[in-house]
Amino acid sequence: MSLIVQKYGGTSVADTRRIKAVAERVASIAKNGNQVIVVVSAMAGETDKFEGFAKDITETPDEREMDLLLSSGERITSALTAMALQETGCPSMSFTGRQVGIRTDSSHTKALIEDIEASRLKTALNEGKVPVVAGFQGINELSDVTTLGRGGSDTTAVAIAAALKADVCEIYTDVEGVFTADPRIVPDARKMDRVSYDEMLEMASLGAKVLHGRSVEFAKKYNVPLVVRSSFNERPGTLVTKEDGAMEKVVITGITHDRNQTRITLMRVPDRPGIAAVIFEAVAKANINVDMIVQNISSDDHATDMSFTVSKKDEKKAFDITKKISEELGSKGVSINSDVAKVSIVGVGMQSHFGVAAQMFETLSRAGINIMMISTSEIKISCVVDVSQMEDAVKALHDSFNLAKV
Amino acid sequence: MSLIVQKYGGTSVADTRRIKAVAERVASIAKNGNQVIVVVSAMAGETDKFEGFAKDITETPDEREMDLLLSSGERITSALTAMALQETGCPSMSFTGRQVGIRTDSSHTKALIEDIEASRLKTALNEGKVPVVAGFQGINELSDVTTLGRGGSDTTAVAIAAALKADVCEIYTDVEGVFTADPRIVPDARKMDRVSYDEMLEMASLGAKVLHGRSVEFAKKYNVPLVVRSSFNERPGTLVTKEDGAMEKVVITGITHDRNQTRITLMRVPDRPGIAAVIFEAVAKANINVDMIVQNISSDDHATDMSFTVSKKDEKKAFDITKKISEELGSKGVSINSDVAKVSIVGVGMQSHFGVAAQMFETLSRAGINIMMISTSEIKISCVVDVSQMEDAVKALHDSFNLAKV
Repeated sequence: MSLIVQKYGGTSVADTRRIKAVAERVASIAKNGNQVIVVVSAMAGETDKFEGFAKDITETPDEREMDLLLSSGERITSALTAMALQETGCPSMSFTGRQVGIRTDSSHTKALIEDIEASRLKTALNEGKVPVVAGFQGINELSDVTTLGRGGSDTTAVAIAAALKADVCEIYTDVEGVFTADPRIVPDARKMDRVSYDEMLEMASLGAKVLHGRSVEFAKKYNVPLVVRSSFNERPGTLVTKEDGAMEKVVITGITHDRNQTRITLMRVPDRPGIAAVIFEAVAKANINVDMIVQNISSDDHATDMSFTVSKKDEKKAFDITKKISEELGSKGVSINSDVAKVSIVGVGMQSHFGVAAQMFETLSRAGINIMMISTSEIKISCVVDVSQMEDAVKALHDSFNLAKV
Repeated sequence: MSLIVQKYGGTSVADTRRIKAVAERVASIAKNGNQVIVVVSAMAGETDKFEGFAKDITETPDEREMDLLLSSGERITSALTAMALQETGCPSMSFTGRQVGIRTDSSHTKALIEDIEASRLKTALNEGKVPVVAGFQGINELSDVTTLGRGGSDTTAVAIAAALKADVCEIYTDVEGVFTADPRIVPDARKMDRVSYDEMLEMASLGAKVLHGRSVEFAKKYNVPLVVRSSFNERPGTLVTKEDGAMEKVVITGITHDRNQTRITLMRVPDRPGIAAVIFEAVAKANINVDMIVQNISSDDHATDMSFTVSKKDEKKAFDITKKISEELGSKGVSINSDVAKVSIVGVGMQSHFGVAAQMFETLSRAGINIMMISTSEIKISCVVDVSQMEDAVKALHDSFNLAKV
């Protein structure tokens, strides 16, 4: 008998017809002698609707109120899914984040899980029931509702799997797994059978939307095997797990891309210690996440160009802050470019292979693609390119690294 | 400084524009130095939507799951209303039933309030905040969400007003108060300035939809002054309060009607002790509420006709049960009539006035309306008539008892 945690995303529970399909699937797995815990997201579109309501009312919604508002979507789905399971004859009951005992800190809208008590979940499992947990939410020490931020239901599922030492945590979505590149861009992109936690982490942070980085970190920390698969068919999906021998043969695992990038450049900043700190402290204070940072070497004028990228939504705020600092520092001004995208290659194998970066740059060069910024880590190389050339870059790299074949 | 509890119903918070209007209203009352607690219903249509989802999934939804599902609507409104209040500059925070400390029994979908702890509400008031409470819900001893059934948000408001000894509990709705009859039927129906708890109770149970009986009972028990008024204008509404001298002058307070009635008749039942008990125990066991019961006197055949009315939604179940009993008892069969309505006159004054019933029957007779069943209490007389004559009956009675004038 296995203990399986299954998380169903918004498109998998988009309407009552889909919820009934999910219930059939879960019931048949439970009938085969497994213990199943289901974690559900809000029905597709509900969270956007709630956010729209809040936006109608205020530009600056209180985060505690946002959490009460947004947490409702998952509660609705959990009640409906439990009903649908009961209707198939499978004993089931719903659980809110509070009823599962998911305790978080008090950072509303992006709370971190501190502890999962889970005794009611265990009781339900022992009674032969399938618990259906409202994802994305917990409560803080005041007993106020908190939400876990983007990808929160994935995090709920992985955290429950870790707390109950589940055999596997399955993340059901509308794609069949993790691909070597986005199949909408690269028609012969290949679904991977396995990928390591670290590669998945890099891919998530580089724009692969199938899993959120936080849930992968959690899975890695507690060594929870994750499976990404489709709720629309029975195919096996992609296993995200520890690195193993089989993986090392592959140098590059996948190509990711991210259109949600804006480049901001401070031109000719005086090159003296502490300048970077001044800039990025000011940006961080405004709650803006900086992604890539590139500083060129200083030239004869003892000044340097400093470029960084931010999410498109933050570009105006980041530009204004940078402009103010530029004036204080006496730099030559600030330029902004919204028409950029980031293309990355990821693979644990590149640690032990030379020439991967060179091959990437040469491939892009041969395809006539200009590289604007470069950033590397042990297992990934990212290039910022013009957004109009992004798709060509992904295709060329997928081809060059031979990813369509296993 | 007064402590005012205000409850806003579904049409008063139907969309974000209406929610902002409610917030403006509340903020100006708070600004005038009052302490205000707001209780909100689900946005109009939301509860129906949730019930539709459940119906898509199963004919027999689990009541615990129904409660989690239905309670979401009020939570959404409470978060949005708190945001809207904050946006006006009025400090505010939302409260779920649990956070208010509303403890109920475990009868899911129709739970009874056992206790209100309210310490967090008091703290919020002392901090100068306007608490916005999600109506209609509490938690049971297992910490599961319960809902209070029809009119539940009114009950929440009255219970909080009682627990905190509020000066008044205002029920905001889409009508201007309690009328002597339905203005859609009787154009010169008059809005009452005051009405007693007992009269309001009778009127609520007889089909006046403006307040639910349970909230009125609660208000009476704890002597909470209730005001029914419109959220769409500033007019003063109707005060529901203890009987006082001013009221006694009026014999009849109002005329109510109820289309939601079906009459079932057992014909020629043996007239012996215990027969009524057999019938109505069986009906009660099926969770069907019987409204009027009329038994004619026995005639020579030692048999009697027994008629009763039920809500239209229960008519099929009630008919089947009655038919089965009829066969067991050897009665002459069961007849059912869905085309009936109940018309009632209500007034505490009728206790000390003779001839009220006679005037009612004569008025109906003059209007050519046949009376099918009659039932009386100390302060009301109800007649079941053909539904096609219901409006005529209401008009004739309103006229006959001179209700258009004060």
